[in-house]
Amino acid sequence: MLLKACVIGANGYGGIELIRLLYSHPKVTIDVLVSHSTQGQAITAQYPQLQNIVELPLEKLDVNEILDRVDVVFFATPSGITKDIAPAFIEAGLPCIDLSGDFRLKDGDVYSEWYKNTPAQQQFLDRAVYGLAELYRGDIQQAAFIANPGCYPTAALLGIIPAIKLGVIDESRTIIIDGKTGVSGAGRKPALGTIFSEINENTKAYKVGTHQHIPEMEQVLSDINNQQVTILFNAHLVPMTRGILCSIYIPINDNLTDTNFTELYKETYRDDYFIRVRPEKTWPATKEVYGTNFCDIGVGFDQRTNTLTVVSVIDNLVKGAAGQAVQNLNLVNHWDEKLGLDTIPTYP
Amino acid sequence: MLLKACVIGANGYGGIELIRLLYSHPKVTIDVLVSHSTQGQAITAQYPQLQNIVELPLEKLDVNEILDRVDVVFFATPSGITKDIAPAFIEAGLPCIDLSGDFRLKDGDVYSEWYKNTPAQQQFLDRAVYGLAELYRGDIQQAAFIANPGCYPTAALLGIIPAIKLGVIDESRTIIIDGKTGVSGAGRKPALGTIFSEINENTKAYKVGTHQHIPEMEQVLSDINNQQVTILFNAHLVPMTRGILCSIYIPINDNLTDTNFTELYKETYRDDYFIRVRPEKTWPATKEVYGTNFCDIGVGFDQRTNTLTVVSVIDNLVKGAAGQAVQNLNLVNHWDEKLGLDTIPTYP
Amino acid sequence: MLLKACVIGANGYGGIELIRLLYSHPKVTIDVLVSHSTQGQAITAQYPQLQNIVELPLEKLDVNEILDRVDVVFFATPSGITKDIAPAFIEAGLPCIDLSGDFRLKDGDVYSEWYKNTPAQQQFLDRAVYGLAELYRGDIQQAAFIANPGCYPTAALLGIIPAIKLGVIDESRTIIIDGKTGVSGAGRKPALGTIFSEINENTKAYKVGTHQHIPEMEQVLSDINNQQVTILFNAHLVPMTRGILCSIYIPINDNLTDTNFTELYKETYRDDYFIRVRPEKTWPATKEVYGTNFCDIGVGFDQRTNTLTVVSVIDNLVKGAAGQAVQNLNLVNHWDEKLGLDTIPTYP
Amino acid sequence: MLLKACVIGANGYGGIELIRLLYSHPKVTIDVLVSHSTQGQAITAQYPQLQNIVELPLEKLDVNEILDRVDVVFFATPSGITKDIAPAFIEAGLPCIDLSGDFRLKDGDVYSEWYKNTPAQQQFLDRAVYGLAELYRGDIQQAAFIANPGCYPTAALLGIIPAIKLGVIDESRTIIIDGKTGVSGAGRKPALGTIFSEINENTKAYKVGTHQHIPEMEQVLSDINNQQVTILFNAHLVPMTRGILCSIYIPINDNLTDTNFTELYKETYRDDYFIRVRPEKTWPATKEVYGTNFCDIGVGFDQRTNTLTVVSVIDNLVKGAAGQAVQNLNLVNHWDEKLGLDTIPTYP
Repeated sequence: MLLKACVIGANGYGGIELIRLLYSHPKVTIDVLVSHSTQGQAITAQYPQLQNIVELPLEKLDVNEILDRVDVVFFATPSGITKDIAPAFIEAGLPCIDLSGDFRLKDGDVYSEWYKNTPAQQQFLDRAVYGLAELYRGDIQQAAFIANPGCYPTAALLGIIPAIKLGVIDESRTIIIDGKTGVSGAGRKPALGTIFSEINENTKAYKVGTHQHIPEMEQVLSDINNQQVTILFNAHLVPMTRGILCSIYIPINDNLTDTNFTELYKETYRDDYFIRVRPEKTWPATKEVYGTNFCDIGVGFDQRTNTLTVVSVIDNLVKGAAGQAVQNLNLVNHWDEKLGLDTIPTYP
Repeated sequence: MLLKACVIGANGYGGIELIRLLYSHPKVTIDVLVSHSTQGQAITAQYPQLQNIVELPLEKLDVNEILDRVDVVFFATPSGITKDIAPAFIEAGLPCIDLSGDFRLKDGDVYSEWYKNTPAQQQFLDRAVYGLAELYRGDIQQAAFIANPGCYPTAALLGIIPAIKLGVIDESRTIIIDGKTGVSGAGRKPALGTIFSEINENTKAYKVGTHQHIPEMEQVLSDINNQQVTILFNAHLVPMTRGILCSIYIPINDNLTDTNFTELYKETYRDDYFIRVRPEKTWPATKEVYGTNFCDIGVGFDQRTNTLTVVSVIDNLVKGAAGQAVQNLNLVNHWDEKLGLDTIPTYP
Repeated sequence: MLLKACVIGANGYGGIELIRLLYSHPKVTIDVLVSHSTQGQAITAQYPQLQNIVELPLEKLDVNEILDRVDVVFFATPSGITKDIAPAFIEAGLPCIDLSGDFRLKDGDVYSEWYKNTPAQQQFLDRAVYGLAELYRGDIQQAAFIANPGCYPTAALLGIIPAIKLGVIDESRTIIIDGKTGVSGAGRKPALGTIFSEINENTKAYKVGTHQHIPEMEQVLSDINNQQVTILFNAHLVPMTRGILCSIYIPINDNLTDTNFTELYKETYRDDYFIRVRPEKTWPATKEVYGTNFCDIGVGFDQRTNTLTVVSVIDNLVKGAAGQAVQNLNLVNHWDEKLGLDTIPTYP
Repeated sequence: MLLKACVIGANGYGGIELIRLLYSHPKVTIDVLVSHSTQGQAITAQYPQLQNIVELPLEKLDVNEILDRVDVVFFATPSGITKDIAPAFIEAGLPCIDLSGDFRLKDGDVYSEWYKNTPAQQQFLDRAVYGLAELYRGDIQQAAFIANPGCYPTAALLGIIPAIKLGVIDESRTIIIDGKTGVSGAGRKPALGTIFSEINENTKAYKVGTHQHIPEMEQVLSDINNQQVTILFNAHLVPMTRGILCSIYIPINDNLTDTNFTELYKETYRDDYFIRVRPEKTWPATKEVYGTNFCDIGVGFDQRTNTLTVVSVIDNLVKGAAGQAVQNLNLVNHWDEKLGLDTIPTYP
């Protein structure tokens, strides 16, 4: 029997990507779509490409009805929404996967500082499991409530985790993450900063030093060896729709200059299907993971400055959002991690 | 048991798209990849996004070996190649699907005139079945050798066929087709006209009045009612990778001004899953079929000029090439036409 | 002494383009910038690229003050605004150039029908001179109030005018204009339809058969030989910021099949610096007029269908808006038509 | 009387941009265009947008004739050409401005190592003045032979120079430069890596740790205080035509955490028209300098990591190539530095 899914926030880009992936999932049906802003419409009024494929209505949020009708809920809502609406589902014991930032930070004060908003209640923050399978697979398999990682943190963390685990980092210098993203991460709500004429043929920095994904990255990195890690992260917008590329500069201890870091990275991700470490001296491009759940990583050591350059790429809407959510769904249900995600990037 | 497939011309964009689609096909395996220009390399050397997924070598063409090893051959080669290499496979009785233009025109002289090249031998032209399922489904199901339609003809023909069948066209005026295409149709071979700096933020007309797809369209349209149809077709390049949009201007007889053409189009394509006629007064966009085998069609009648505007969109690499080839493979094998093609467009 | 200019609607794309062009004009200074939505801000708050170059405030509209301070007013406001605010300036005798659609249509009822809005008062419609220099240069030189042509009409009319003047059109068939535009024509106001993720890698038709530029084109074309001309015009959005390309299909009388239309077009525009007819069998691209006031035209006769294909390209913000306004300013002042506009397209 | 200019390599993107800028320069005429690959053609055969504006032939290189006919030579040739052809002009005493990389590095061995080519003769390397006006204005004014800076070095150096001059850098950590460039920097020669379908909707790293601009940056930075500076620089390709954005991470001494770096940067560039330091907490975008000679800089100090983030943007073909060459021409001739360059960025 198929698992019945509900997508809350179905009208946004995270929502529509969930619909695309869940439609191809062999063990899931999409039963309920919820949208606050477009309730009452058919999903095809917003996304005509679903004509004849997924012809569901966009419903208003009704907790009891959803509890009755489905087996799992995905929250594809903006930050600041799930902290209020998820608890009812969690308390009722329905498995929940939250794609927003509301339950990722364990410390409510840190959330307040970076998100400029009231945090979720601590008891629900405590229950949420951070859904980065490559680091917390075991915990996810036991979880009922997943805080799906942010897009930048997914790309950045997967590029840094092996170096932390290996203990090769020179702590007197700072890890620097230079992130580049496509525009879809900004969502579907019209704003001056995302209209075509302002973005096309343009590249810019934004939220320099203030991006809310910084504490998320530091929380996870600090958890690996139980030792505080501080990073410098800057975000840039490039004129494309999908894709994140993080260029990561990791200072390396002096005595490790002969290390083959590519091999060490490959070894670390030996059992992780979605992480592909590229051959030495080759570098991934965002389009090479387009539409898929892969995170591709290139690694190169700069002898001149004792710094490891790691380039990691993801599709921000897949491994950075909906795909990772499906991967977590698979883990929670003890299914093959690749179910519904075993596809080749669309290229060109 | 799975059907074993060979892709000749695997290194081009039609080839890589075939690989993407066949990989997800439940009844097919990819067994042999052939490339003239990159033989000896791994396919991952050309397309690193296939790492860990499809790790086959690019082989040189060896007819006997292919006959031994596979059950079907796809030709994703440029025009002018298959006319010479396909006959050996056809004579050996191996099912063949040709994505090039070599076997589409029944009249070798017409081929010579528009392609500026020697045509294939007449006996093989005679054996080829034109692979537009929505018009020739029955013939395809009996065929062993398919000439897969061109990208522009697919979009244009599907927009005009109902009007021809319905007999509503004013023959004293000309059908005009204004085609707009993304750049991937030009293939992967570098040329001044397709480098990014020349294409980005640019739109242009090309091959005005001389495009080799003109006789292909006229041949098919003339075949429907066995009556000569002459069209005017112009091609335009727009700055995107995938997608074709054809704006078609069909002159309508004076006495039909109250006709509901949208309904007539819907009726014509009632049994064709991949053709989606849009609701009255709505119009399809290329991205709404991105990565899929759909052809979406909008229809509107202009009372002021007795002209029917039809807008049809496809993904040129899917319904306009590799997807239609897979659809034809399904028909030839009497499988469900949707096998391997039942996906939602990637959006945005 | 320099002519003092005021730009009303300075915050929009037409406004900022006027500022760019007027800054380089040797006989003009920009003295007053007016914006309804951003009054009180510095123009550099909206357009930081003006830092150290044009550092004026955005003021609220004050008719008397503007009458005191400047010698000419440009209206770069959306349609529906100038019909109410321009009369005060016109009556005071200040030269006015209106870039909106409010004064282009001579018949108020036609305006109501296509713009769905109350028209301007007839007396002011009567006073407005349609600012297409290549057709009405003499009138413009005597005018004080110019209705600057729309972007699509500029490209389309310049492609059709010679054929009308020459009397070669087969009136039993329809002139069809297939327009493709970049997104900047939609202005700077955020809307779902213009955000990057919806436009990028996408092409679509819009306002099929209902575009408000249709009556504008018909009014001008009918005026040339004082004979009613009906056209079919459809608009398409392509993923670029600037540029319009119109593909025009003109039915030609049977007895003219040996005509050299390229030469006739060249002859028609012999004295028009900004119109460049391309050599036979070559076709212009939008980027080849980027940032300039040129309209480039390619002409080809299709013997098979007795149809003339004309391809005309402009930069919608220059020849289609601000540049044509400056050209008109030059004419009104009896200056060299090229002043401030004598530049090479930025390429690539 | 106007200065007569020759552009060698007129067919490339650096060449065509020189033609655009020199055409608008009030004290220069373009007299000779030279192209190796397209000699014998008209420039309008390659660039039809020059029709009726610049209609010169592309000539083959003839040193004596050029010496006879012009007053200054610009070399817009690829690296590896001018080292052989420039000496004849230099020895004849003709002012030369070289846009290639052949004369930028003072040490021929370093050139050999990074460019994998034989260097120019030392006597000519010694005569070349590095054409970064903001650092070497006085020297340029006395020079007859200018090595125009590379595109990345221009953006990066202008972002770092103030910090070096001010002596605020913590030398125990490395300066990291993360560069993002549009594709036009790769030139007009077709290659797989620059065709539209490979670049569009794609971002990638390239030449990681091996870019030939690294020693150029280090040479200049080390020259400021006569102290060796080592940097880490990585290059990235983003899907746009023009523009470079460098994100620069400068480690700052512990005792300087209260410094207002924005003010210090403004002060450093007080007399440099083309350098615009943005107000605190605002960041430049590449499109905000499009088509102009500006370098816009944003500066922000990260208290958490004692690191200064500097974001600097240029148009790679203007301040990064042809515009800077014209700026140098102005200095060599003791003209106003802004001549021919005093324009507003084209936006959007």
